[in-house]
Amino acid sequence: MKPRSIGLFDSGVGGLTVMKQLLRILPDESLIYYADTARLPYGEKSRETIIRYSIENAIFLLEKDIKMLVVACNTATAHALEKLQHIFKVPVIGTIEPGAKHAVEVSRQGRIAVLGTKGTIKSQCYQEAILKGNPDAFVLPIACPLFVPLVEEQYFSHPATRLIVQEYLKPIKEQRIDTILLGCTHYPLLKDLIQQEVGSDIAIIDSATACAQKVASLLAEKSSTGPTYRYYVSDDPVKFQKMGQTFLGIAIDHVESVHH
Amino acid sequence: MKPRSIGLFDSGVGGLTVMKQLLRILPDESLIYYADTARLPYGEKSRETIIRYSIENAIFLLEKDIKMLVVACNTATAHALEKLQHIFKVPVIGTIEPGAKHAVEVSRQGRIAVLGTKGTIKSQCYQEAILKGNPDAFVLPIACPLFVPLVEEQYFSHPATRLIVQEYLKPIKEQRIDTILLGCTHYPLLKDLIQQEVGSDIAIIDSATACAQKVASLLAEKSSTGPTYRYYVSDDPVKFQKMGQTFLGIAIDHVESVHH
Repeated sequence: MKPRSIGLFDSGVGGLTVMKQLLRILPDESLIYYADTARLPYGEKSRETIIRYSIENAIFLLEKDIKMLVVACNTATAHALEKLQHIFKVPVIGTIEPGAKHAVEVSRQGRIAVLGTKGTIKSQCYQEAILKGNPDAFVLPIACPLFVPLVEEQYFSHPATRLIVQEYLKPIKEQRIDTILLGCTHYPLLKDLIQQEVGSDIAIIDSATACAQKVASLLAEKSSTGPTYRYYVSDDPVKFQKMGQTFLGIAIDHVESVHH
Repeated sequence: MKPRSIGLFDSGVGGLTVMKQLLRILPDESLIYYADTARLPYGEKSRETIIRYSIENAIFLLEKDIKMLVVACNTATAHALEKLQHIFKVPVIGTIEPGAKHAVEVSRQGRIAVLGTKGTIKSQCYQEAILKGNPDAFVLPIACPLFVPLVEEQYFSHPATRLIVQEYLKPIKEQRIDTILLGCTHYPLLKDLIQQEVGSDIAIIDSATACAQKVASLLAEKSSTGPTYRYYVSDDPVKFQKMGQTFLGIAIDHVESVHH
């Protein structure tokens, strides 16, 4: 019997920051990543549509005999996680609850800023998850709509990005925040710049790392054979490969394009 | 008989920069704007899909008894203009040929830079249209992928935007460009900033204005009654209304949401 893999899906390359952490924490596990690039972005689509896409993505991965499903996408986690957990046998892990829980654990004063896309902030998913972990927490939500395009253009330490980080994070000092939660899979690529701007006294938690740690803690049956990594996309494989390597931190050898 | 309107469509708010110029040049004409916001962005979709969407958008407007159709979208113009002109009786005007033609007329040395999204630059539609007008022209294509998100966040004169403009436009001076063609309907909102950066010796042409001038020149039967303006979207009307006013320059009173 060949070893079963862990499956991850996202609408694009963002979820590769979760995969990057899995590579680090679980170096022996085989991973399959599916990016539904033909139907991105998910951010603005309706709940019903997101649920339908998520079920389709999950079934694609389940047919590859995965032992665990990681929803490496905030929008899909917010709308479809419960539904996926309800209908599928394998454990299904999302990004929101692990990130929020870790932020609550790390925060000393319970003053937590959540950075996310407009859609994520508006959905209040992180705000609610943090208050569930600590009902006395003070949560400062900050929408950072320019972060995703800046990351996708690889402006990680560009002076323009620094100016925009400074502008978005102005309220952090005013509100005496002690912990920042990066609530978008693209944002870990700006973590160094953000840390420089806010100083080392403020802890920065990212959902990608917290999600990978949760996967590791839940993994009953670990692999011991050599790992394999496979990548599937629903649109152009070359574009995914090029941009994906930046997110993943290692080379992506082969991307297969599939239609469903 | 009630006066017939001019119909415009785009995937989002961008085409409102064309409508803004129509309001200025043809103040007596009634206009109907349709934004296919449920299916945006068009930029990355296949040719076949863009053609199908464009035909559906055109039929929606034709059912409102328009006398002329304006494809106020670069992607739809690049892929679907000929098809629309072939199948519909009313005149169909796009953005690319009028913009390119105007740039060729204005340019003294025939050294023209085209600014556009990655998709528009890659399609070479403006490059080809300029060379058709002046086979000896030197065309410098510059993809400016961060301009659309910066405009949508209303960072029109933000220091970060200025830095990004400077970076994108570095080759302009090196290549002794005399004319810049703004080949994206969002870019007219950055025209002032770009002019400040390149200096007044370089002419800046925008496709939105050129397209509106072409509409005016082709209009056989002008209206003399009071104009009306109607707006339809295929997704959330409130979001369109808020952002649209910035692009249009006047208040948008009512936006109707339709599904087809």
